[in-house]
Amino acid sequence: MLNFTFRNPTKILFGKNRIEEINKEIPAGSKVLITYGGGSIKSTGTLAKVKKALSGFELSEFGGIEPNPSYETLMKCVEQIKATPVDFILAVGGGSVIDGTKFIAAATLYSGDPWEILTSFGSKIKEALPFATILTLPATGSEMNSGAVITNRALHAKLPFGSPLLYPVFSVLDPEVTYTLPDSQISNGVVDAFVHVTEQYLTYPVDAKVQDRFAEGLLLTLIEDGPKALLDRENYEVRSNLMWSATMALNGLIGSGTPQDWATHMIGHEITALHGVDHARTLAIVLPSLLKVRKLEKKEKLLQYGERIWGITEGSEDERIDLAIKKTGDFFKSMGIGIKLSDYGILAEDIQTIVGQLKDHGMVKLGEKKDITPEVVEQILKLSV
Amino acid sequence: MLNFTFRNPTKILFGKNRIEEINKEIPAGSKVLITYGGGSIKSTGTLAKVKKALSGFELSEFGGIEPNPSYETLMKCVEQIKATPVDFILAVGGGSVIDGTKFIAAATLYSGDPWEILTSFGSKIKEALPFATILTLPATGSEMNSGAVITNRALHAKLPFGSPLLYPVFSVLDPEVTYTLPDSQISNGVVDAFVHVTEQYLTYPVDAKVQDRFAEGLLLTLIEDGPKALLDRENYEVRSNLMWSATMALNGLIGSGTPQDWATHMIGHEITALHGVDHARTLAIVLPSLLKVRKLEKKEKLLQYGERIWGITEGSEDERIDLAIKKTGDFFKSMGIGIKLSDYGILAEDIQTIVGQLKDHGMVKLGEKKDITPEVVEQILKLSV
Repeated sequence: MLNFTFRNPTKILFGKNRIEEINKEIPAGSKVLITYGGGSIKSTGTLAKVKKALSGFELSEFGGIEPNPSYETLMKCVEQIKATPVDFILAVGGGSVIDGTKFIAAATLYSGDPWEILTSFGSKIKEALPFATILTLPATGSEMNSGAVITNRALHAKLPFGSPLLYPVFSVLDPEVTYTLPDSQISNGVVDAFVHVTEQYLTYPVDAKVQDRFAEGLLLTLIEDGPKALLDRENYEVRSNLMWSATMALNGLIGSGTPQDWATHMIGHEITALHGVDHARTLAIVLPSLLKVRKLEKKEKLLQYGERIWGITEGSEDERIDLAIKKTGDFFKSMGIGIKLSDYGILAEDIQTIVGQLKDHGMVKLGEKKDITPEVVEQILKLSV
Repeated sequence: MLNFTFRNPTKILFGKNRIEEINKEIPAGSKVLITYGGGSIKSTGTLAKVKKALSGFELSEFGGIEPNPSYETLMKCVEQIKATPVDFILAVGGGSVIDGTKFIAAATLYSGDPWEILTSFGSKIKEALPFATILTLPATGSEMNSGAVITNRALHAKLPFGSPLLYPVFSVLDPEVTYTLPDSQISNGVVDAFVHVTEQYLTYPVDAKVQDRFAEGLLLTLIEDGPKALLDRENYEVRSNLMWSATMALNGLIGSGTPQDWATHMIGHEITALHGVDHARTLAIVLPSLLKVRKLEKKEKLLQYGERIWGITEGSEDERIDLAIKKTGDFFKSMGIGIKLSDYGILAEDIQTIVGQLKDHGMVKLGEKKDITPEVVEQILKLSV
C-alpha cells in the first residue's frame, strides 16, 4: 500500500425526504444563492421543495449552468454575487452544476484573474464561499469531493482543478429525486462511476486489499443494478445503490494508497471539448481501447478484475484479459452507450486534433506510470475508430 | 437501504514516517498534552519520535491510561489539565488510550458532574478540547470515530458514549509502529475489527449492496492477513491491510444505511467489567453463540456470509449456516483466541451475574430488532460455557 492522506469532511444526508432538513445545516440568517442547470428542477418540483425547506432564508438564484459548465457562464454568476453578495451557495443538480458551483465559490473570493484557478489546477485558491449540494444525478461524485472540471468554450479546453477548500459542507442524496431522469442520463451516470473506479483500480498491484475489494464492490453493484435502473424506473433500492456507488466511486477513499491512472478521463475531456460528446460516453470510447493497449502494464490487475468481477477463470492469461475487456465494453453497450468514435460521428482523421489538444494542455505523460505519451494516445484512439 | 447521515472529518495520515509531519497538523504555539498507556511507547521509541516531531511545542505528559480505561484514572488527567491548561491533546496508543483521551477532552470542559457524560451516552457534551491520535494498535477504530467506552471500576460498569465533537482532528496510522506488538494484541485487534464488521453486517438484508460488499471486503482481508501477521512479524503489506481494515471497520461507513446489532459488544462489556477478560476475547466468546441463537432472525445474511466469506454453497440452509458459524469460531481459535467462557475460567454459575449487570445498565432490549432480552442473553451465554 502506498502512503496516503485522506480527509473528507462532507456531511451526507442520504434517503427519502432529507431535503426537508437542510434548514438545520445552513447557518441561520444566511443569504443563500441557489445554482442550477437547465431548469428541470422546476418541472420536477425539486426547486419548490428546496425553497420550502429554506423558508425564512434570503434566497437568490442563478440558473442556466450547462453540461460541461463553461467559464463564460460561471463568470456571469461570479459577477452577480459581486453585485449582490451571498453567504452560502446551494447547488441543486448533477456534476456540472456542482462543478460549476465549486468554481463560483472559489472565483468569487479570488483576487487575481480567475482563469488562474484553472491554469494552477486549483493550487492558487486561498479561500472559497461555503456551499452545499442537492444531488439530482448520480454520476460524477462531485457531491463528496473537492475537484471539478470546467470548460473554456473559446479555447476548446476542458480543465480539472481542485482544492481542500472545495468540499461541499453537506450533500443531500435522495434516490427518489432520480426517478425522473431520462435513460440517457442514468446510463451516463453508471458508466461515469464505473470508469471512476477503474481509474483507481486497474493499474498495478500494491497489495491494497481493502481498496481493491471496495473498488470491486462498487463495480459489481453498478453492473448488477445499472441495467435494472433502465427497466424499473421507480425501484428505490436500485436507485439507492447506484447513487451511493457513484458517490463512493470518487470521494477519495478507494484511491487512497493505490496508484491512479486517469488517462481515460484526460483523453475523454479533449473529445468532449472538441466534439461535444457526453463525458461518460467519451470514457466508454477510450477505456476498452486503453486497456487493450496497456494489457501488459496492467496485467495482474486485469486478471484479478476478470476473475472477481466477471468470473473469468479459464483460458490463457491473454484470453482472460481479452474477455474481461470485451465484457467491459459489452456492459457499456448494454447501458445503451456506444464505445466507438464512429458512434458519435468522429472520424479517424479527427484523432490527430484530439492528440494535438492533449499536447497543448500539457497532457503528455499520462497514466499511473506517466508513460502514456501522445503516441500511445494515438494508438488507443485508433483502436476506437 | 435505510436513510442515513454520514460525516467523518478525521484526517488520516497513513504510512511510513508520517509521525514526522504532525507539527504541521497542530496549530503553532499550542500547549500539547501527550497521553499514553503503560509506557511501551517509551521502549519502542515512538514517544521519542513524537517529541522530536513536536520540538518547539510546549509539551506535557499523562501516562498510565490502562486497558479498559477507568473513570478514576481519567479524572486524574482532567485534574492535571485544570491545574495546568493545554490547548491540544495527542493520544499515543491503542483504543484504550484514545477512548480515554476522548473522555478527557470532553470532561475537561464539562460544567456538571463528568459522570453524566457516561450516563447520558455523551448527549450532554457541548464542547471538547481538540485532540489527535498516533495509533499504535489497530483494533478498535477509535482513531477515526467519535465514540468511546469507559470503565468505572467501583461500579464494575463499562459504558459507551459518543459525540460528533469527539472525532480526532487527525490520526497517524504507521503500520511499522505495530511490528513490536505482542501476538496477543495483534490477535485481539483482528478479532475486535472482525466483530465490529459483523455487528453492522450480520443482521437482516436491506439491499445495501455497497455496504455489504465493503463489509465483506474487510472480513476477507482480516481472514487472509490476520494469521499472516502472527507468522511474519515485519510484513509491511500485511500490517498495512490490517491497520486500514480495523479503521474502516468502525468509522461509520459500512454501517451507514444498514441495521446494526451490537449485542455481542454489550454482553462482552459486562464480561470484561466483571472478569477482566480482554475486550476482543469477550467478543469471541459471545459472537458464535449469539449467531447460533439468532439463526432464524439472521438467516438471509448468514447464508450470504457463508457463501461470500467462506465459499459455502452446498448443503441445506441450516447446514450452511452452522458451517459458517463454525468457521467463524475456528478463525478466532486460529488467531489463538479461546471462544468459551471456560477458556477464561468463567463458570456456568457466573452467567446470572453477567445477565444481572446488563439489566442494571438498562441493556434489556439488544440487537438489530431490540428483541435480545436478558433471557436470550442467558441462552447465548449457556452455549458458550
